[in-house]
Amino acid sequence: MPPRFDFAISHTDGTARRGQIAMQRGTIETPAFMPVGTAGTVKAMHTREVRATGADILLGNTYHLMLRPEAVRVDALGGLHRFMNWDRPILTDSGGFQVMSLTDLRTLDEEGVTFKSHIDGRRIDLTPERSMEIQRLLGSDIVMAFDECTPFPASFEEAEASMELSMRWAKRSRSGFDSGTDHAARAALFGIVQGSVYEPLRMRSIAALEEIGFDGLAVGGLAVGEGQALMFETLDFTMPAMPTGKPRYLMGVGKPDDIVGAVERGIDMFDCVLPSRSGRTGQAFTWRGTVNIKNARHRDDPRPLDADCRCEACQHYSRAYLHHLIRAGEILGAMLMTQHNLTFYQDLMARLRGAIEQGQLSKWATQFRETYAQGDIAPIA
Amino acid sequence: MPPRFDFAISHTDGTARRGQIAMQRGTIETPAFMPVGTAGTVKAMHTREVRATGADILLGNTYHLMLRPEAVRVDALGGLHRFMNWDRPILTDSGGFQVMSLTDLRTLDEEGVTFKSHIDGRRIDLTPERSMEIQRLLGSDIVMAFDECTPFPASFEEAEASMELSMRWAKRSRSGFDSGTDHAARAALFGIVQGSVYEPLRMRSIAALEEIGFDGLAVGGLAVGEGQALMFETLDFTMPAMPTGKPRYLMGVGKPDDIVGAVERGIDMFDCVLPSRSGRTGQAFTWRGTVNIKNARHRDDPRPLDADCRCEACQHYSRAYLHHLIRAGEILGAMLMTQHNLTFYQDLMARLRGAIEQGQLSKWATQFRETYAQGDIAPIA
Repeated sequence: MPPRFDFAISHTDGTARRGQIAMQRGTIETPAFMPVGTAGTVKAMHTREVRATGADILLGNTYHLMLRPEAVRVDALGGLHRFMNWDRPILTDSGGFQVMSLTDLRTLDEEGVTFKSHIDGRRIDLTPERSMEIQRLLGSDIVMAFDECTPFPASFEEAEASMELSMRWAKRSRSGFDSGTDHAARAALFGIVQGSVYEPLRMRSIAALEEIGFDGLAVGGLAVGEGQALMFETLDFTMPAMPTGKPRYLMGVGKPDDIVGAVERGIDMFDCVLPSRSGRTGQAFTWRGTVNIKNARHRDDPRPLDADCRCEACQHYSRAYLHHLIRAGEILGAMLMTQHNLTFYQDLMARLRGAIEQGQLSKWATQFRETYAQGDIAPIA
Repeated sequence: MPPRFDFAISHTDGTARRGQIAMQRGTIETPAFMPVGTAGTVKAMHTREVRATGADILLGNTYHLMLRPEAVRVDALGGLHRFMNWDRPILTDSGGFQVMSLTDLRTLDEEGVTFKSHIDGRRIDLTPERSMEIQRLLGSDIVMAFDECTPFPASFEEAEASMELSMRWAKRSRSGFDSGTDHAARAALFGIVQGSVYEPLRMRSIAALEEIGFDGLAVGGLAVGEGQALMFETLDFTMPAMPTGKPRYLMGVGKPDDIVGAVERGIDMFDCVLPSRSGRTGQAFTWRGTVNIKNARHRDDPRPLDADCRCEACQHYSRAYLHHLIRAGEILGAMLMTQHNLTFYQDLMARLRGAIEQGQLSKWATQFRETYAQGDIAPIA
């Protein structure tokens, strides 16, 4: 029987770590990137294709799933894994972030958040206890504590009040999670560090979460508009205070160079809609930066998006074809571009893991940044 | 070296035929259904998935491809097969039908048709010669003569004038096709029988096409609103006059029961957007008729669309999941539903071929119609 949750670091390189999270539904190689399967599907992808990109774990959105198809229904149908045909680990967020960013009519108090469903206008309460229950009904493997993602910018006082609320909710999340006995015996619970860009608040948040006790810690409240420099600065003072023996998850990050910088600073897990969302609109990630396939210069280009890429889009199709598909609004365009981008992200993680194993991360990262900044190779004249 | 075009009938059962068309890019088992790849893609499907459904040949639309990405561009990129990653036969229509049905501003005269592009408003001429050139640039394996699809209803005089114009265009199509020497040595050319619902006109049309000489004959001007009864009636007097040694293609047909009835009457080839188009909007074909997966009764249903179906959607997903995907507008919904419907259509053809081989078509068709009319199995109470 595999363990409920076991995190082992096999290599370090500076502050970067290479490890494995062993869970009942499978092992997650870290640093890991988790594709986002918002509403029970990684958009435009079969789950077998998601797996083929190299993904060990998916992220599911509690907010979306609680509204449609609803958590009790997913539970009655055998849980999210069976529902969406993915038998490896799933991490679910707590729903809090989406309630804050996606809904207009919402009120927040000590108890939780109340909002109106964007689907049928129903009034819905989301509390730490309810979030834990929903994530349990979904059958999540890694459950996230319910928190308030402090908006940016926030004054010290605002950030402090918000962080303290999140810490009280973290405690209630822990209790809620633990009361779902069967599920708690199989799944893991992560706490979320808040405190905006303020070092003393981040320190107090880490201490509070450690006091409660979690399987892993996420860094929340970043990638919310503060920019890469301030994000890295915040990581620079936050990471040294994080417990070394637990996975560290940077939520909602990010662009390839964000991920590289965060791995250098000791982050183990990431999730982001960027590769899938921007793929659907025609933006591809390559080792030489981004490529907008809708650009007219690709119209006659027989070359693949990236000659070194192993994905189906690069193995079998020209830029001209992808350009045509995306311009014509063809679903296959979204399918192939998403496949490419998710493959790129997984290959990025694999190369980061390899560089750490070899103690070459700094050199590799310098080279990556140089090539990535060079821009796309000019088309054949 | 496989032959340019060789049609062999291995079994007959009443007026139905079971055969094989051997061509350089592969063999087509008949009766055959050709999925429609309008703009260089069977919508929402990888070509490897299309092949896995059992398709031996695709249809490409000259009208769509000539406007975007344009035939000269497809040619410069190595032809339609390489462009869309499909190495088996492709049949292209002549563009005439789409010009008539999709464009508002068009004029028709002896020379051909002039219309405005729906993409950029350009004025475009389409003639028999130009249609042959475009289909050659695309690298089509089976080229269709340029004709006027006589609208329904039409008076005898209207249908006669329209048919005679099509026959003059058929002659020019033959000349245009033959002048593309290299391509003509590899590809086949089909003529199209017109004459609306009038027996004498159909007879004259067949005679005119036989006089010119084609590799196969299509029945055009049906499935344009006349209804199944009148379509079958027209086939009943048309088919006996068709040459037996050439494939017979019923254009734009149809629903499963249309196909069964037409196979019984001696048709060898079909194409239709129905399985792919209706799949995207949530209509599934099953052996017990159609299922609208958006219907609320599927919301909690853990069963597959069709328990006997070999497709990915039926093997791995519940009706509840497909219901959720289509309701939420998820791309994966279109992908899975299309995969199911195209699999159903290919399995229908395979069963028709098997029934003819065993001399059991009439019995099989009766049973099929009975089951198909029964309707979907009620959900578990």
